[in-house]
Amino acid sequence: MPLRRDELTGEWILFAEARAERPQDFAPGGWSSRPGRCPFCRGHEADTPAAIAHYPAHAGQADWQVRVVPNKYPAVGGEESGAAEEICGGMQWPGAGRHEVIVESPEHVTSLTDLDDDTLRWTFTAYRDRMRALSDKRELRYAQLFKNNGPAAGASLEHLHSQLLALPLVPPRVECELAGSREFFLRHERCLLCDMVEREKRGGQRVVAESDSCLAWCAFAGRFPYEVWVAPRSHMPRFEQTADAVLHDAARLVRDVVAGLEACLPRPSYNYYLHTSPFDGLHDRWYHWHIEIVPRLARAAGFEWASGMAINSLLPEVAAAQLRAAR
Amino acid sequence: MPLRRDELTGEWILFAEARAERPQDFAPGGWSSRPGRCPFCRGHEADTPAAIAHYPAHAGQADWQVRVVPNKYPAVGGEESGAAEEICGGMQWPGAGRHEVIVESPEHVTSLTDLDDDTLRWTFTAYRDRMRALSDKRELRYAQLFKNNGPAAGASLEHLHSQLLALPLVPPRVECELAGSREFFLRHERCLLCDMVEREKRGGQRVVAESDSCLAWCAFAGRFPYEVWVAPRSHMPRFEQTADAVLHDAARLVRDVVAGLEACLPRPSYNYYLHTSPFDGLHDRWYHWHIEIVPRLARAAGFEWASGMAINSLLPEVAAAQLRAAR
Repeated sequence: MPLRRDELTGEWILFAEARAERPQDFAPGGWSSRPGRCPFCRGHEADTPAAIAHYPAHAGQADWQVRVVPNKYPAVGGEESGAAEEICGGMQWPGAGRHEVIVESPEHVTSLTDLDDDTLRWTFTAYRDRMRALSDKRELRYAQLFKNNGPAAGASLEHLHSQLLALPLVPPRVECELAGSREFFLRHERCLLCDMVEREKRGGQRVVAESDSCLAWCAFAGRFPYEVWVAPRSHMPRFEQTADAVLHDAARLVRDVVAGLEACLPRPSYNYYLHTSPFDGLHDRWYHWHIEIVPRLARAAGFEWASGMAINSLLPEVAAAQLRAAR
Repeated sequence: MPLRRDELTGEWILFAEARAERPQDFAPGGWSSRPGRCPFCRGHEADTPAAIAHYPAHAGQADWQVRVVPNKYPAVGGEESGAAEEICGGMQWPGAGRHEVIVESPEHVTSLTDLDDDTLRWTFTAYRDRMRALSDKRELRYAQLFKNNGPAAGASLEHLHSQLLALPLVPPRVECELAGSREFFLRHERCLLCDMVEREKRGGQRVVAESDSCLAWCAFAGRFPYEVWVAPRSHMPRFEQTADAVLHDAARLVRDVVAGLEACLPRPSYNYYLHTSPFDGLHDRWYHWHIEIVPRLARAAGFEWASGMAINSLLPEVAAAQLRAAR
């Protein structure tokens, strides 16, 4: 499953032919989860590849509450770590990678708001621990954690799960945030996210919820209606080094935000994803992890794909007021 | 309708509250075209704002074949051209803009392949002429031409149409292509697209179709399955300066590619969009216009939104062979 370089933009595209084998691919709106035959439910463990980890760790293999397995249809693959080479008219790179799935309950639950406190904690612990394990591998530079929930968010199974896609490069969107943060640091000797969290808390009009260690707010220039960011209030560059207390506090806040979205919108599909400082640690002084939570309402259309610009039809101040009122 | 700057990435987001008034917004899969009540059909001209232009130009207003109107729900707006200013905790910019719709037939046709040669020519002539008119406005730097066709491509009306969204900035994706092209030019003293078209024609394995003046091929590192690019074979930086012969030749090739997609895939939704050298002419030596045509098959999901990377499940060589066989 190679990466290819777009000569015009310089960006790397993942080619993942294995994913075309997924039953619902090329059938928009398809939804391949059939009741009683869900591969993520307890009793169907043989329908997934063997588990990489399970939680609570002291429990027996059969008593898992959260389970991490390799993705059956990986978007990246193998241990290949060769150099990029010229092939059929362009640059292609074998590119090492890992693609894991975190199954977030043995029951057939479909939203983060269905999780009890213990399972929620194990879920975020699994995110952190797997990221820590992947950060030790020399051939990997970044792991992208994300959740697809509901058909409009690109989920192919409804059973609650997240994915961790480890890559031999730092994704362009993260590179962009790193550059902006570094620039801010050079001017102000301060982490931009630390500054932003403090300003948002002081201003208050975009705040959605807060806890001892974290803040949830609608991003000033969010790309999507109801886009909410959750970040630790103290400087915390790398997610995989986050202490239990902050991690579990963030987990509860993310669940609260999802509950707010579910109160405001009829059965919303949603994504959330983590942006964190890359494994090499070189950006730790100016970067700060945060989770972006986005309900999928309008589709991206020609303009967005053409331009790389987002059109957001809802001001964040309005979205935040609605989400606060829904609590 | 302001633009706001994302402090982390530096990118500008369009805030367009008027668009939330569209009937289908926030209702994924909605499709607001009712037979007999389509505002783009002949006889319903009063349902759109007054026409900016019509084709053929010598015909009377009522005898139009192609008609250009302001978008009733613009994503950008007004003649504002004030400077960006600090507002409620971030940078906001009134940002001038125009948002026009090109209605591509007086009949209720739904795909480019329904157009006869004359109407197809007027359509592309309208694209070019409107872009030329907008390029004269000091406050505008770029106009993004795009087509949304079918619900999965983000179309809100099924009647065949395209849109032209003129902006006070060059969109980030175009900036990225300009940078890559400039870098190539500085190394090779040659336009990258000119070089690419020649290489693709010579290699042949990704070629989909060709004509006297243009080539259609599956991009080596396309972001999406069946992504096809169409470009003039001779250096041609700015779409609005393209001569009739090349313009109409490109139009026929785009229609051929859409016909191929429709032969390969069941009722595909598709987008196409133009990338062209900005109005200021500063990039004309190294940039070259091209149209990217993409059927909308799989949805973007959490990974793509998080990372800015695309996952493509079909190699372009395979897609090109299928599209060639379908002709």
